Amino acid sequence: MPVDMTKDMALLKLDGCELPAAADMHVHLRDGPMTELVVPTIRKGGVNTVFVMPNLVPPITTPQHALEYKKRLQSLEPNVTFLMSLYLHPNITPETVIEAKKAGITGIKSYPAGVTTNSSAGVVSYEAFYPVFEEMERQNMVLNLHGEAPPSVNSDVTVLNAEETFLPTLVELHKRFPKLRIILEHCTTEAAIETVKSCGPSVAATLTAHHLCLTVDDWAGDPHCFCKPVAKLPSDRRALLRTAVSGNPKFFLGTDSAPHPAISKRGDKVAAGVFTQPHAVGFVLDALQMGVEKEVLTEEDVTQEKLKNFLSEFGRAFYQLPDERNESIVLRKPTESVQDLLSNADSTIEVVPFRRGKMTWGVEWK
Amino acid sequence: MPVDMTKDMALLKLDGCELPAAADMHVHLRDGPMTELVVPTIRKGGVNTVFVMPNLVPPITTPQHALEYKKRLQSLEPNVTFLMSLYLHPNITPETVIEAKKAGITGIKSYPAGVTTNSSAGVVSYEAFYPVFEEMERQNMVLNLHGEAPPSVNSDVTVLNAEETFLPTLVELHKRFPKLRIILEHCTTEAAIETVKSCGPSVAATLTAHHLCLTVDDWAGDPHCFCKPVAKLPSDRRALLRTAVSGNPKFFLGTDSAPHPAISKRGDKVAAGVFTQPHAVGFVLDALQMGVEKEVLTEEDVTQEKLKNFLSEFGRAFYQLPDERNESIVLRKPTESVQDLLSNADSTIEVVPFRRGKMTWGVEWK
Repeated sequence: MPVDMTKDMALLKLDGCELPAAADMHVHLRDGPMTELVVPTIRKGGVNTVFVMPNLVPPITTPQHALEYKKRLQSLEPNVTFLMSLYLHPNITPETVIEAKKAGITGIKSYPAGVTTNSSAGVVSYEAFYPVFEEMERQNMVLNLHGEAPPSVNSDVTVLNAEETFLPTLVELHKRFPKLRIILEHCTTEAAIETVKSCGPSVAATLTAHHLCLTVDDWAGDPHCFCKPVAKLPSDRRALLRTAVSGNPKFFLGTDSAPHPAISKRGDKVAAGVFTQPHAVGFVLDALQMGVEKEVLTEEDVTQEKLKNFLSEFGRAFYQLPDERNESIVLRKPTESVQDLLSNADSTIEVVPFRRGKMTWGVEWK
Repeated sequence: MPVDMTKDMALLKLDGCELPAAADMHVHLRDGPMTELVVPTIRKGGVNTVFVMPNLVPPITTPQHALEYKKRLQSLEPNVTFLMSLYLHPNITPETVIEAKKAGITGIKSYPAGVTTNSSAGVVSYEAFYPVFEEMERQNMVLNLHGEAPPSVNSDVTVLNAEETFLPTLVELHKRFPKLRIILEHCTTEAAIETVKSCGPSVAATLTAHHLCLTVDDWAGDPHCFCKPVAKLPSDRRALLRTAVSGNPKFFLGTDSAPHPAISKRGDKVAAGVFTQPHAVGFVLDALQMGVEKEVLTEEDVTQEKLKNFLSEFGRAFYQLPDERNESIVLRKPTESVQDLLSNADSTIEVVPFRRGKMTWGVEWK
């Protein structure tokens, strides 16, 4: 007779809880066969709206490229709303911004040069882009920041303090462009949360599911927990958990789900990225459950209302989106475990999901 | 015509420099075929005296086991002096200490439970071992500490602050047993260096070659640079580099060379350990060279005298060893690169060396 592992678990009260479908405001859907593998998992995770990152090879720097990409994504999954972005790059001018807005592009993503996957074409200095930001502000587009200072020779910037080192840049951009909507993506530190709080309502942040789960000890020695920005200290994780259920509309889900071929995670040089797409909502619930079990949160902190805010409403509100699909999901207590490996039919692409083999909260579509 | 890469390099003045053979006061030589692969590389690294770690499976907790192991090592390489250790374990009593001393065992190594490779049988509380330490003090044996506080549930101890968290334990042990020779092994932080300096002359520390080279950014995403304790911040690395050439006799080489099968470094769970044995002296020179190039050190800091101290004399002095072999090595500027892989004849054991494929300082026996 199987043991009922869920009997005494925290958050059992949420089994059967109905929520609006989630919006995942930071996803990597890649290109080619990887896209075909990953896109069909979006709805499995309880998500029907995604904001898609532009760091393909070559990066998406024209509205035309973004629209072609969107078309491919839509043909793979017509029941998801794909919000598109451009990659901040010298190619992008104020005219590109106007054109992008007309084409329905939602945001422009900035990668500091050299900090993560396909960021070698990224930003060295923000000043050169001030005219672009000015036009974005006018056009009411969103600036999505990968908020890490790049490492530089003889500086003391490391993966541990790169985000905190970047925060003055965020504050400076916000001061110069106070109406420009800016998102500090995948924020990982208490310092970042406090800085985002201290800014006006045009500045928000996404939190990932995996950063709600992890600290530095988890990725030290585990390639599948290694991503950029890296997970930080237990105190940072506690701050993230509390923020996710704080009811502050500046903070919402963006998983930064970042699939890499399994071989790139198990080699001599580990690709940065954690693949969470198939369990976007489930992993958030797992993290909150761990938060309650570790007494960072109480059961009372995690309500249907707070989940609705964080998973669905705050993101859509910041992006000024109607919930056009108006779908609901139902949470299911953990009864199944995460697959060890996702692969396509001919096994030419294999991806290791986050928390492989572990029990996870489930999602059903209503 | 090949480019002379060494033309403008730092420390070229040390090409041809003669030194006494190095003593490596912290090595993992493992068991079985791995031992057969690794032991013959000791002299290649410029080393003729090693202090051998006891974390085999099962751990070495009896003098008899240590002597059998020593015999195997000697039969593989008669031209190296093997100093042996026991694994601090409930099996070890004051009587064991007396017996060990008689058998010529040099030290007892303490692993806090759960911090690194084969440490599951390690120490939970030091108090239980006070009678053992008292006898060790009487017998003039060395206590070798893996100086990391183990992670514990709901604490904020991580791989980043585990060493610093351990330092009060070192100070407390030193206070209780002021004549007991204690070595804080493979120290990685400025805080540890300062604490060791603040203790009396019975407390010393080993520094590894790889911690002189690495920071957290190097092991984030590179399994071959991942070890315990993990490499820390640039400021810590600078402190280690300066300490290695400071002329302070409390600090000397112990590489913590820790071979793992290549497959254990490239899998889903990365084994902690960096394999440096075949280039023990060369990698120290590489690190010092990088230190000069990064302007942490000047060329004048790195003298024949300072190298002799750090690589050979201070370790032997602390261990109260005569240099019985009285051999010399000659440094050679980098002209060859590190092997990509070491393997035995039938390729059943493969190990990836530190800095594989990179140019390294060479060593010749005089």
